[in-house]
Amino acid sequence: MPKDISLPTDAADTAAENGAPQRLAAIDMGSNSFHLLVANYQNERLQVVARLGEKVQLAAGLDEEGQLSEAAIQRALDCLGRFAPFLTGITQQNLRIVGTNALRDAHNSQAFIERAEAQLGHPIEIIAGREEARLIYLGAAHALAENGRRLIVDIGGGSTEFIIGEAFEPRALESLRMGCVTFSRRFFPEGELSEKRMRRAELAALSELANIQRPYQRLGWDDPVGSSGTIKAAASVLFAYGDTTQEGVITRGGLKKLRERLIKCKRLDKVELDGLKSDRAKVFPAGTAILSAVFEAFDLEQMRFADGALREGVLYDMAGRNSAEDTRSKSLDVLKRTYDVDSRQADNVADTASRLFDALHHDWSLSDSLRRYLRWASHVHEIGLAISHSQFHRHGAYLLEHSDLAGFSRPEQQLLAFLVRAHRRKFPLKEWQALPNNQQAQSAKLARLLRLAVLFNHSRPEQAPPLPEVSADADQLTIKLPESDEPTLLSTDLEQEQGYMETAGFKLNLVE
Amino acid sequence: MPKDISLPTDAADTAAENGAPQRLAAIDMGSNSFHLLVANYQNERLQVVARLGEKVQLAAGLDEEGQLSEAAIQRALDCLGRFAPFLTGITQQNLRIVGTNALRDAHNSQAFIERAEAQLGHPIEIIAGREEARLIYLGAAHALAENGRRLIVDIGGGSTEFIIGEAFEPRALESLRMGCVTFSRRFFPEGELSEKRMRRAELAALSELANIQRPYQRLGWDDPVGSSGTIKAAASVLFAYGDTTQEGVITRGGLKKLRERLIKCKRLDKVELDGLKSDRAKVFPAGTAILSAVFEAFDLEQMRFADGALREGVLYDMAGRNSAEDTRSKSLDVLKRTYDVDSRQADNVADTASRLFDALHHDWSLSDSLRRYLRWASHVHEIGLAISHSQFHRHGAYLLEHSDLAGFSRPEQQLLAFLVRAHRRKFPLKEWQALPNNQQAQSAKLARLLRLAVLFNHSRPEQAPPLPEVSADADQLTIKLPESDEPTLLSTDLEQEQGYMETAGFKLNLVE
Repeated sequence: MPKDISLPTDAADTAAENGAPQRLAAIDMGSNSFHLLVANYQNERLQVVARLGEKVQLAAGLDEEGQLSEAAIQRALDCLGRFAPFLTGITQQNLRIVGTNALRDAHNSQAFIERAEAQLGHPIEIIAGREEARLIYLGAAHALAENGRRLIVDIGGGSTEFIIGEAFEPRALESLRMGCVTFSRRFFPEGELSEKRMRRAELAALSELANIQRPYQRLGWDDPVGSSGTIKAAASVLFAYGDTTQEGVITRGGLKKLRERLIKCKRLDKVELDGLKSDRAKVFPAGTAILSAVFEAFDLEQMRFADGALREGVLYDMAGRNSAEDTRSKSLDVLKRTYDVDSRQADNVADTASRLFDALHHDWSLSDSLRRYLRWASHVHEIGLAISHSQFHRHGAYLLEHSDLAGFSRPEQQLLAFLVRAHRRKFPLKEWQALPNNQQAQSAKLARLLRLAVLFNHSRPEQAPPLPEVSADADQLTIKLPESDEPTLLSTDLEQEQGYMETAGFKLNLVE
Repeated sequence: MPKDISLPTDAADTAAENGAPQRLAAIDMGSNSFHLLVANYQNERLQVVARLGEKVQLAAGLDEEGQLSEAAIQRALDCLGRFAPFLTGITQQNLRIVGTNALRDAHNSQAFIERAEAQLGHPIEIIAGREEARLIYLGAAHALAENGRRLIVDIGGGSTEFIIGEAFEPRALESLRMGCVTFSRRFFPEGELSEKRMRRAELAALSELANIQRPYQRLGWDDPVGSSGTIKAAASVLFAYGDTTQEGVITRGGLKKLRERLIKCKRLDKVELDGLKSDRAKVFPAGTAILSAVFEAFDLEQMRFADGALREGVLYDMAGRNSAEDTRSKSLDVLKRTYDVDSRQADNVADTASRLFDALHHDWSLSDSLRRYLRWASHVHEIGLAISHSQFHRHGAYLLEHSDLAGFSRPEQQLLAFLVRAHRRKFPLKEWQALPNNQQAQSAKLARLLRLAVLFNHSRPEQAPPLPEVSADADQLTIKLPESDEPTLLSTDLEQEQGYMETAGFKLNLVE
């Protein structure tokens, strides 16, 4: 297998082969804390082997221009250095490292990620807010025994996720840009803590919440559950002061008392409460403001804390990826329906593309795990037609890059977007060069296969046509066409393709 | 009315007032020819007053880099200069000047348009391919008496439009990037005319046609009709040689004979046929190749020529704009349904925005015709949510800029896209400065009103709330809020808005 694959592959690819317990690991690089979770997966259960967390406070290291400071980057790398020994012996397919809001926001996150990837020797993905919400729900759903409809709230350092779901099925997923670290900086910048400042933070949170309040209340829930550190800490303080009788439960009245206790501290650096760890103290008032706003917006009487969050979700997701239920395929099915794709044509192109892949992946050293990206891109290459026929490859790429696609990491969406962008007309050199260096070679090859698959099906036949003889050698691709005196639609298309390839610096040979 | 309005306004705004015949005019700046049409409109009929056409061959003046040559620009301006006297006395509302494929393609079309607008004193719109198709159909539908389902083909200089429709309702609209001028350059670059070159041109056309062939054949038609100069000329040559018995009808056999006659000429500059005007001769072989491909792709036995094309459509469209059937409102309704917009919220925002417009349009010298853009933007401001909640104002703007929206000109779509882009978060200065100079002042004002309308409805109420007292003076906007000791959601939102406005160089005053 070539070394240059930095897209995640599937844990279950290996698990399925031998049925032995799989050692899986996840690192969640949150805006406030980094977490490591290592577990054995067998019989659909995770058995935790190691669990570590550190308050890296990445979001606190974001300056006004959205740049991560060198100090914050160093804290992050140091923490990853301490996590690294736990990853020994875990294969790349069984490890997933995700970054969330602070890394979504930072303009220089790519530079940081390259350093971190070099240090760990593993790819790192920045995931979208809604994908984060989905994974959190997956983690929480496995931790909760009860049935019924749940509202899950996860207050992070830079974003807060809200999910309504039943059993393992999320019904609503949202990620709002508010978190205990970013709100601390914004509403308590000089460390002063007052009623007025608390209220301002709450109102800002209510302002964000206004966007989802009504639809969420319409869906409704039986059981409000909070995960994440802020909520755990709040429950712990309430219990320490006897403001709640039940451990792990936050009541409306208890939360009000907590808020008053915090305001009495007057300054962030003076916050000291029973049940509160000192490394959480500084960001706890902002977290409490967000939690109060959540109670206010959703008119909650109480909320209970439940363990199991993003990192657990990542592990369950990794374990379940290769099943027929593959979330990613389901996401693309939804996309195809939404944008009313011509399924027959999509199937035919996918069919031809797969046969081209079979014929050439050895010559081109394409790892088998890339086949699915080619197939997925084939299935959605025409979604942009829903916007306009003109430049529809660009529109499709836009939709793939920006849509919330459950199960996909950002690099995966970017690869699909690139393949769709590149599937017709001029080869998009600028977009190609913007891909991560280690993905360019394979991305160009996949794009070239997709382009040919589209040309072979240009006349939109009932069934995909038989494949001509094809071969590849280094950067060259050779197609043997049936002899013909007359130019045909296919030969005309392929000659034009030859020109496009030449302009892009690739070579397509046509022989008879 | 302020002078800076360069968006088209509605002919019928005036017509409705007095019921007198309206003098309407359209200029169609095609890739091959420019046309002027002046007519009186009364009782739903056009009475032609003047009709002029010139072979400007704009597309022939496009160089390899997609730049219009100065010579081509000069030819265009000279032609417009000859058209100008016919426009005397026609009000801006009753004149529409549209540009098609060559201007869509040219990188320097904006520079040309500014010169042409300065010369004519009227705004010029570049229209999208599908909008061109819609207008062509509208023109042709008025010219055709017969019932039944029609296929309309309009071979232009740079694009060819294909429409299937019944009565006045188009069922399928497409614009393909092939035309008699661009294909002449591409397939007969040195003027040599041979069987092989003809076939290559035909195959390139078939390659374009492959995209629409099946869906069009599935829809089907009773009556194939061709408009535009190429088809008129083909019918005329066929009749001159007796290859067809019926004037204005092109048969498959006749077309084949025409093709052979052309190939025998051996060079473009030697093309001389009975019934063919000399100024059409050079681009006629390429046009014939496209027409032959159309016959081949759609398996046509014959096609008849019918008058009435883009310019007629523009006039009928202008005449019908202010009716309840307003095509533009219908287009946005489709968009709202496609992207599943929350109608109540859209209505509430539109309601508040309209009331803000009423309250301030006098202070801000906003012409009444701008009200509809504000209302339309309100109705679609949330369409981007269908792609992702994150940055949904950007996604909405993308959809509005790139979707085929029947009835809208490109500047209109750009204005709507801008308003949606600017409706929340930071005011988008870069996008704002990219608007035409003479639209910036009014666009910013409309955007500021939409932003406020969205904030006033932030909590997604059942009904739009009552409007606080507002006033405006030059660039300042003042809102009087009810007295309150406590910050509220609205006051928090407005303070944040104050900051956004200040950053953008505008002023929002909040008084109690």
